[in-house]
Amino acid sequence: MEGVGLLLAGGGLEGELRRWLREDVGRGDWSTIAVATERSRRGLGQTVRAVWRAKEEGTIAGLPLAGRVFELLAQESGAGEALAWRPLIEDGDACGAGEVVAELEGPAAVLLTGERTALNLVMRLSGIATLTRQYVDCIGDLPARLVDTRKTTPGLRLLEKYAVRVGGGGNHRLGLDDAVMLKDNHLAAAGGIAPAIAAARSVMPYPLTIEVETESIAQVQEATVAGADIVMLDNMPLEMMREAVTIARSLNPRIVLEASGNVTLETIRAIAETGVDYISTSAMVTRSRWLDLSMRIIP
Amino acid sequence: MEGVGLLLAGGGLEGELRRWLREDVGRGDWSTIAVATERSRRGLGQTVRAVWRAKEEGTIAGLPLAGRVFELLAQESGAGEALAWRPLIEDGDACGAGEVVAELEGPAAVLLTGERTALNLVMRLSGIATLTRQYVDCIGDLPARLVDTRKTTPGLRLLEKYAVRVGGGGNHRLGLDDAVMLKDNHLAAAGGIAPAIAAARSVMPYPLTIEVETESIAQVQEATVAGADIVMLDNMPLEMMREAVTIARSLNPRIVLEASGNVTLETIRAIAETGVDYISTSAMVTRSRWLDLSMRIIP
Amino acid sequence: MEGVGLLLAGGGLEGELRRWLREDVGRGDWSTIAVATERSRRGLGQTVRAVWRAKEEGTIAGLPLAGRVFELLAQESGAGEALAWRPLIEDGDACGAGEVVAELEGPAAVLLTGERTALNLVMRLSGIATLTRQYVDCIGDLPARLVDTRKTTPGLRLLEKYAVRVGGGGNHRLGLDDAVMLKDNHLAAAGGIAPAIAAARSVMPYPLTIEVETESIAQVQEATVAGADIVMLDNMPLEMMREAVTIARSLNPRIVLEASGNVTLETIRAIAETGVDYISTSAMVTRSRWLDLSMRIIP
Amino acid sequence: MEGVGLLLAGGGLEGELRRWLREDVGRGDWSTIAVATERSRRGLGQTVRAVWRAKEEGTIAGLPLAGRVFELLAQESGAGEALAWRPLIEDGDACGAGEVVAELEGPAAVLLTGERTALNLVMRLSGIATLTRQYVDCIGDLPARLVDTRKTTPGLRLLEKYAVRVGGGGNHRLGLDDAVMLKDNHLAAAGGIAPAIAAARSVMPYPLTIEVETESIAQVQEATVAGADIVMLDNMPLEMMREAVTIARSLNPRIVLEASGNVTLETIRAIAETGVDYISTSAMVTRSRWLDLSMRIIP
Amino acid sequence: MEGVGLLLAGGGLEGELRRWLREDVGRGDWSTIAVATERSRRGLGQTVRAVWRAKEEGTIAGLPLAGRVFELLAQESGAGEALAWRPLIEDGDACGAGEVVAELEGPAAVLLTGERTALNLVMRLSGIATLTRQYVDCIGDLPARLVDTRKTTPGLRLLEKYAVRVGGGGNHRLGLDDAVMLKDNHLAAAGGIAPAIAAARSVMPYPLTIEVETESIAQVQEATVAGADIVMLDNMPLEMMREAVTIARSLNPRIVLEASGNVTLETIRAIAETGVDYISTSAMVTRSRWLDLSMRIIP
Amino acid sequence: MEGVGLLLAGGGLEGELRRWLREDVGRGDWSTIAVATERSRRGLGQTVRAVWRAKEEGTIAGLPLAGRVFELLAQESGAGEALAWRPLIEDGDACGAGEVVAELEGPAAVLLTGERTALNLVMRLSGIATLTRQYVDCIGDLPARLVDTRKTTPGLRLLEKYAVRVGGGGNHRLGLDDAVMLKDNHLAAAGGIAPAIAAARSVMPYPLTIEVETESIAQVQEATVAGADIVMLDNMPLEMMREAVTIARSLNPRIVLEASGNVTLETIRAIAETGVDYISTSAMVTRSRWLDLSMRIIP
Repeated sequence: MEGVGLLLAGGGLEGELRRWLREDVGRGDWSTIAVATERSRRGLGQTVRAVWRAKEEGTIAGLPLAGRVFELLAQESGAGEALAWRPLIEDGDACGAGEVVAELEGPAAVLLTGERTALNLVMRLSGIATLTRQYVDCIGDLPARLVDTRKTTPGLRLLEKYAVRVGGGGNHRLGLDDAVMLKDNHLAAAGGIAPAIAAARSVMPYPLTIEVETESIAQVQEATVAGADIVMLDNMPLEMMREAVTIARSLNPRIVLEASGNVTLETIRAIAETGVDYISTSAMVTRSRWLDLSMRIIP
Repeated sequence: MEGVGLLLAGGGLEGELRRWLREDVGRGDWSTIAVATERSRRGLGQTVRAVWRAKEEGTIAGLPLAGRVFELLAQESGAGEALAWRPLIEDGDACGAGEVVAELEGPAAVLLTGERTALNLVMRLSGIATLTRQYVDCIGDLPARLVDTRKTTPGLRLLEKYAVRVGGGGNHRLGLDDAVMLKDNHLAAAGGIAPAIAAARSVMPYPLTIEVETESIAQVQEATVAGADIVMLDNMPLEMMREAVTIARSLNPRIVLEASGNVTLETIRAIAETGVDYISTSAMVTRSRWLDLSMRIIP
Repeated sequence: MEGVGLLLAGGGLEGELRRWLREDVGRGDWSTIAVATERSRRGLGQTVRAVWRAKEEGTIAGLPLAGRVFELLAQESGAGEALAWRPLIEDGDACGAGEVVAELEGPAAVLLTGERTALNLVMRLSGIATLTRQYVDCIGDLPARLVDTRKTTPGLRLLEKYAVRVGGGGNHRLGLDDAVMLKDNHLAAAGGIAPAIAAARSVMPYPLTIEVETESIAQVQEATVAGADIVMLDNMPLEMMREAVTIARSLNPRIVLEASGNVTLETIRAIAETGVDYISTSAMVTRSRWLDLSMRIIP
Repeated sequence: MEGVGLLLAGGGLEGELRRWLREDVGRGDWSTIAVATERSRRGLGQTVRAVWRAKEEGTIAGLPLAGRVFELLAQESGAGEALAWRPLIEDGDACGAGEVVAELEGPAAVLLTGERTALNLVMRLSGIATLTRQYVDCIGDLPARLVDTRKTTPGLRLLEKYAVRVGGGGNHRLGLDDAVMLKDNHLAAAGGIAPAIAAARSVMPYPLTIEVETESIAQVQEATVAGADIVMLDNMPLEMMREAVTIARSLNPRIVLEASGNVTLETIRAIAETGVDYISTSAMVTRSRWLDLSMRIIP
Repeated sequence: MEGVGLLLAGGGLEGELRRWLREDVGRGDWSTIAVATERSRRGLGQTVRAVWRAKEEGTIAGLPLAGRVFELLAQESGAGEALAWRPLIEDGDACGAGEVVAELEGPAAVLLTGERTALNLVMRLSGIATLTRQYVDCIGDLPARLVDTRKTTPGLRLLEKYAVRVGGGGNHRLGLDDAVMLKDNHLAAAGGIAPAIAAARSVMPYPLTIEVETESIAQVQEATVAGADIVMLDNMPLEMMREAVTIARSLNPRIVLEASGNVTLETIRAIAETGVDYISTSAMVTRSRWLDLSMRIIP
Repeated sequence: MEGVGLLLAGGGLEGELRRWLREDVGRGDWSTIAVATERSRRGLGQTVRAVWRAKEEGTIAGLPLAGRVFELLAQESGAGEALAWRPLIEDGDACGAGEVVAELEGPAAVLLTGERTALNLVMRLSGIATLTRQYVDCIGDLPARLVDTRKTTPGLRLLEKYAVRVGGGGNHRLGLDDAVMLKDNHLAAAGGIAPAIAAARSVMPYPLTIEVETESIAQVQEATVAGADIVMLDNMPLEMMREAVTIARSLNPRIVLEASGNVTLETIRAIAETGVDYISTSAMVTRSRWLDLSMRIIP
C-alpha cells in the first residue's frame, strides 16, 4: 500500500486539513492557550509526549493524515521542527484493543489543539476500513471483488474511498466524470437503454466506460447488445442473477458484471458465487460506526 | 424549528454546497449530458418531475439543503426559475417507510446531477436525527438533556450538530472557541485543576464558561471550589455520580453537571436519574447509520 | 449541442469567470469609471447597445460564456436586469468575416469593463474550434475520430476541450484520473508493460480503462495480450501502423486503437485510412491562433 | 533577468500552480500510483532521474515554474527534500533542437504526476518568448520598442506578459487599473476625447497616465491638446503615421506615441521607422504556437 | 459620484462582504435565532422595520455597502425579495447629528445578524470621509490637491481609498503595481537616483510613471534631470519646498510635484501655497476615528 | 504572553497575510524589481540589513506578524533561509520614541516589498494596544476589568482583539456565536426579556452564557430574575449604576455586571468604582490612531 501522501499529491488535501482545523479551532482554542500560559508561568517547557491508542480491535486507516494535521499546526505556530509523529503500524494493518498505534512529541499546544480533528479523521476512516475488511473476508477466496458507491459523506469522498481500499475493497466510480452509469432515472429520462448508450458514446471522453443498471433479464440482454461495457444487476434474486451472468457472457465474453442491492455480511457470499465480477455496496460507508481511539499525554 | 436558511445565513453554507457538488461532478456529469442530448434529439422538453421517498422509518433532517443543492445547480446552468422544490414534511418530522417526503420539478439535467449530493446530505443527517430521537425518547420525561460532542465528521460539524437539534437533542460546544473545556490532557499538561482554571479566566473572552472533566469525587470538589462553571462527570459509576451531584450542588447551587461516558440506549435513563443536568455522547454521530431515501423521476 | 451551462453546472465555472474578471479589473477600471462619470455629468443614460462581430471566417465557440461574463458584472454592480445578451448564432456554427454574432445592451460600464475578458475567451476558444473543424473535415467520411490530448493551457482544460467538441472533435482523457495511460516514462519506471497493467488494475477504480503507449509491433502485441483496453500507436510509420491494427485486432477484436504523433492537416487522412479508431493530437490547442472578433458600441 | 520567484513574490503564484495541478490530477493519478506500487513490489527505490529536452529551436521561458511545480508536489507528498531540479539554461536563453534544458531527480511519482502541468507551462510560455524574439529582432537597432496588449489567455496574464519580457519585448498595461486607455468604445460612450480625459483625471489615482486611441490626424491633435500622456495611432497608413508623429511632437515634445494594428513580422520595421516610441501587438500571444519540449525518465 | 457597485464591479467585493459576515457570525448567531424562534412561537411575522441614524455630524461613506450586506444575508437565508434598503442620503453627503440616513425593512433575523458588520463598515469609512473633508476644506480654493498613501488597514485598501474620494480627496497609488515610487530604501539599495530610474524604465509596463522621493534640493534636481515623472518633496521646510518647486519646474515644466510629511489641519494650507501639485498624507486613514451611527428596530 | 503563532494556529492567519500582501503587490512590485535588477547589474549581492524603529512612545503589538510577512515573501521567492527577523522587544512591551524594536536581514526585494504591509499591521495594532494601556492604567488598582466590543474593522477582528489583550485589556465576545447578547433590538423584536432568554436557552449550545442589555433598574431586575448570566448596564448615570449593582447582586450573588456607554479616559475610573465587574468600550479600536514606526535599510 503506497502512502496517503503519494496518493493525494496534487489533490489539495493540505487545504482540506487546514479547513477542518479551522472548523474546530474557530477564533482560538482558549483551553489550550490557558495551558500554554500556565506552563510558561511555571517555567515548564512546552514540549510533551503522547500516545495514540486503539480502544477496540479493527483495521487502521488515515494514520498518516493525523501526522499531517499535527505537522500543519506546528508549522503554523512557527514550531515545525519540534513535532515528531511516529506511527507504529501502517494503514491497513489490524490493531488490537489497547494497542498503541502511534507516538508523538511536540509543543503541548499543538497536540491539544490538533487532537480532536486528527482523531475524528482516523476514527471515521478506520471504522470504514474495519467494516470493509469484514465484508472482504467473506469472499476472499472467490474471484468477485467488493467495491463501494458514490454514497459518501459530502467533502470526504476521496478519503472514505481510500479507507475502503485500505480495508481490502476496491473503488467504483470516484465521481460523475470518470465513467458513465445509466441508472433507472437516466433511462426513464432518455427513453431507453440503446439511445442512452449511443448518446453517451457521442459526448463522453472516449476512454470512458459505460455501465447500465438493469432489473430484468430483458434489460441485461438489451444493455449487452447495445454495447454497455459493464452491466449492473440491481436487486436481483440469486437465481435471476445466475441467469443474467450466463446470458450476458454468451453475448459478450468481455462484459463486466456487477451485483448490487441487499448486500450484507450474510448475503454477500452467495452473491459472489453467482459468478459476477464485482459486488457494490455503500454499507462500508453508510453502516459503519467509528473505531474508538484515544490520545493521552504522558505526564 | 426555524429553518436551515435562517440558521446558517452568514456562515458560508452556500460555498460548502458548491464545493460538495464539485466533489461529485468533477469535470462533468457525462451520463446526464448524454440524457439531455438524447432528449434534445428526440424533441422532448428538458423538464421532468420526481419524488423523494423515505425507504424506512425515521426522523428527517436536512431536507431544505437538498432543495438548495438543486436550486444552485439550476442557477448555475442558467435555468434558475425552472426549478421547483416542494418538501412535504419539515425537518424534525417523523417519516414512514415508503412515504413521499418531497416532490421536485425541473430540468432533467439538474435533477440527475444533483441527486446523489442531495441524497447523501439528507440520508446522513436524517440518520443522526433518527438515532438522536431514540436517545431523547428514553429520557423525555426527565429534566436531564441529551447533548452531543466535538466528535463530528470533518467539514460537517455545523450540519451534524443541526441534525442533533432536529432530533430533539441539544448541542455542546460547537468548537474550541465557544467555551473552555479542561480535559485530562489539559490538566496533565497544566499541572492541576485550579491553576488551569485561573489561566483560562485570564486569557479567554470574559463571557465564556469553563468546564472541567473529572474522574473522582475529589476532582469534582476541587473543580467546583476552583470556580468551574460546569463539571463533567466522566465515566463514573452511577453511585459515584449521585454522590458527585450532591457534593457539587452543596458547594455551588448554580453549578452545572454533565455526565459522559458509556452512554447507550440501555444506560441513558439511569444516568439521567442521577440528577445531572446534561448527558453528552457522540453516539448520535459516531454510531448512527444513514437513513435510506431515494429519488425517482416520474416517466 | 447542449449548452455550456448544462455542461458545466456544478463544476465551478462561475468562480473562474469571476477570477478572470478580477485578473483584468484589478483595483478598478478607471477608464470606464471616467466614462460613466462623464455620462452622468451630461445627463446621458447609462444604457448603451453594442454588437459583436467576427472579423474573419471560422467556427464560434464560447459565446454563452461571453454572455455570462457580462451578466456577472451587471449583477455585481447591482444592475442585473438591465443586461440583455442576444447571441445570433450558436456554438459550433460557422461565422463569416464581418458577420454580427451577438448583440448586447446594458450599462456602458458593464459592457466596457467586461469587453476584453469576454472577447479573450471567445477568441481563444473559437480559434481552437476553427482548427478542429479543419482537421475533422479531412476525415469526416472515415470511421476514425479525432481526439485531443492533455496538452492544454493551465486553468483552461475544460473550456479548451469543450472547444474541441464544438469544432467536431472528441475528447481524450480530461485528467489523470479518468483513465490510466501508461506512457514511455511509466513503463520505464515500472519495468515493463505487463506488470504496469497488473498494478493499475489493482489500484484504480474498477470501471476505468487502461491505455498503453507503444512504439513497436512487439509492444503492441505485449500490451494487447496483457489486457490493455486501448493501445496507442505512437509515431509509427503508416505501414507499421497498418500491421499493428491487424495484429492487435486478431488478438482482441474489441481492442481500441489510437494513432498519435506527427498528425497534421496533410497526414491525418492517411493515418485514418490505416483503420485506427482514434487519432489524437494536441494541434488544435497548441497550434491554433485566436479567431479575431470585436465589440463595438453603437453611438 | 531577475527570476520568476522575485517577480511574483506576493502575487499568489503558488496558489495558481496548485490549482493547475489539481486541474490535471483531479481525484488521483492512477497511472502513477500503479507505477509506484509496482516499484514497491519489486523492491525498487522510488527515486528516478529525468531530462527535459527542447525538441526545436526557440527561446525558453518559464523554466523556474516547472521546478516549482515539482517542488510543490514533492512537498505535498511529504518528500520535499528528495527533489532536485537543475535548469541548465536560463529564461530568455536560446535553446537548440535536441538540447537538454534541465535535469531533475526525485520520486518517480512526483516526476510522473507533475510532468504534463510543468511541460504545458513551459511550452506555452516558450512559444510566446520565441515569437516575441523574432519580432524584436526585426527592430532591434531602432529606438521603437515592441509591447504586448491585454489580449491574453484568461488566468495567465502575468505569466504570458512575463514571457513577452523574457523574449525581449516590453509590457503595455497589465490590467484595467494601471493606466487609463480611452478607446473607440470609451470615446463613443463618453461623447468625445476632451471630456473623457477630464473625467479620467478627476477619478483616477493621480500618478496614472492617460492614453487615447486615435484613427485620424484630427484625433491626434485633439488628444494631444487635451492632455493625453500617450497617443495611440491605430491602424494608420505609414504616411499618416509619420504625419501624426510630427504633429503630436510639435504640440507636446514629451508626448509618447504608440502604433498599433496590422503589425506583422513583415510590417513591423517600417512601422518602427515612422518614429513612434512603441509598437503594440497581441501577435506574440494570439498567434504563437507552443514550443515543443519533452521529459524523459532515464532508465 | 458614481456608485460603489459600479466602482467595484469585477473586483471581488461581494466575496469580501461574505467573508466579513462569516468573521462575525462564525458558527451561528444564537441571539438572533432565539429572537426568530420566539417570534414564531408567538405567531409574529418575521418582517420588521428599522432606521439608521447618524449620532454625530460628518460625511457619509459606504452606505451602499450596508445595503449589500443585508441583501446578501437575505439571499442566503432564502428571503432575498423581502429585504428593502432605502438610503436617504448619498455617499459624500453631509449628515447631521440625529439625522436618519437610511431605512430598511426585512426579516428580523437578517437585520439583527447583519447590523454590526454593516455598521462597522459605514462607521469606519465615514470616519475617513469626515476627516478628509476637513482637510480638503482647508485648501479648497487652491490648486493643490490632497491625496492619500498606502498606509491603509490590511484588507480594506480599496474601501478606505474610496472613502477618501468620497470625502473630496484624491488617491495616490492603489498598490505597488500601478506606479513606481523610489523611496529612501529603494535608493539606498539601488545606489542612486539615476540608475534606479533607468532600471525601472527597463522593467515596468511602459505606461507607468516614476516618482522619486527627495529630501534636498540636490535630490530634486537629480531626479528631475534623470527623468522622474513625479518628484516628492519629503518633510521639507516651506522655504526649501518653494525653492524646489521653482527649480524643478524650470528643468521640466511638466514635472509633477508632491509634498509629504508633517501634514496637519494646521500646516496644510501653507504647504499648498508653496505651489506643489499634490499633498499626500495618511492622516485621513491613520488618525481618523469612527463616525458614530446606530440602527434601531421600530417596535 | 504566549505568542501570536500559538494563539492563531489553526485559524488561517497565514492565508490572511498572503491575501494582504496580494492586496498591496497586485501584479508586481515594479519599484523593487527595478532595485533588484540594478543590484544584479552592479554585481551587488541581494542581501541587505534594516532596522525597525518606533517614532513615538507606545505599546508594541503585532511584531511577530511582521516577521511572518517577510518570511512568507522570502519563502515564495525561493529564498526562505536567507531571511532573519530579530525582534528586540515583545508584544506588550513599551517602546520609546526612536527605539529600535526589530532588526532584519534578507533579500532587498523581500524587505522592500513586504515593508508597507508589515508596517501597516504593526502600526495599527500598536495604536490599539497603546490606547488600551492608557485606559487600563486608569483602573489598574480596581477589580473592574476593561473589555472591548464587536466594533472592529471588518477582517481584522482577531488581531484587533489580540491587540487589546496585549495592551492589558480583556475581550468581550469574539463573534455572534460565542455568547448570547440580547440588546435593545433583540428585545424589541422578541417582545420582552424573559421570553427572549427562554428562547435563547432552548436553541443555543448549552455551555454558552446569556447577557442582557438594560437601561433601567426595572430591566436589571427583570433580567436577573429571568436568569441572565450577565447584565449590561447601558449608559446609566453613576448613581443608577450603583443601585443596579446592589439590586442585581442581592437577587443573584453570582451575577456578572458590565457597564457600557460614555466610557472615556476621564469617566472610566468613576464607573469602575460603582462595583461593576467589567467595563466595555470600543474606544481602543474606534478612537485610536496608528502608532508611528519606520523601517530603514542600512546602506
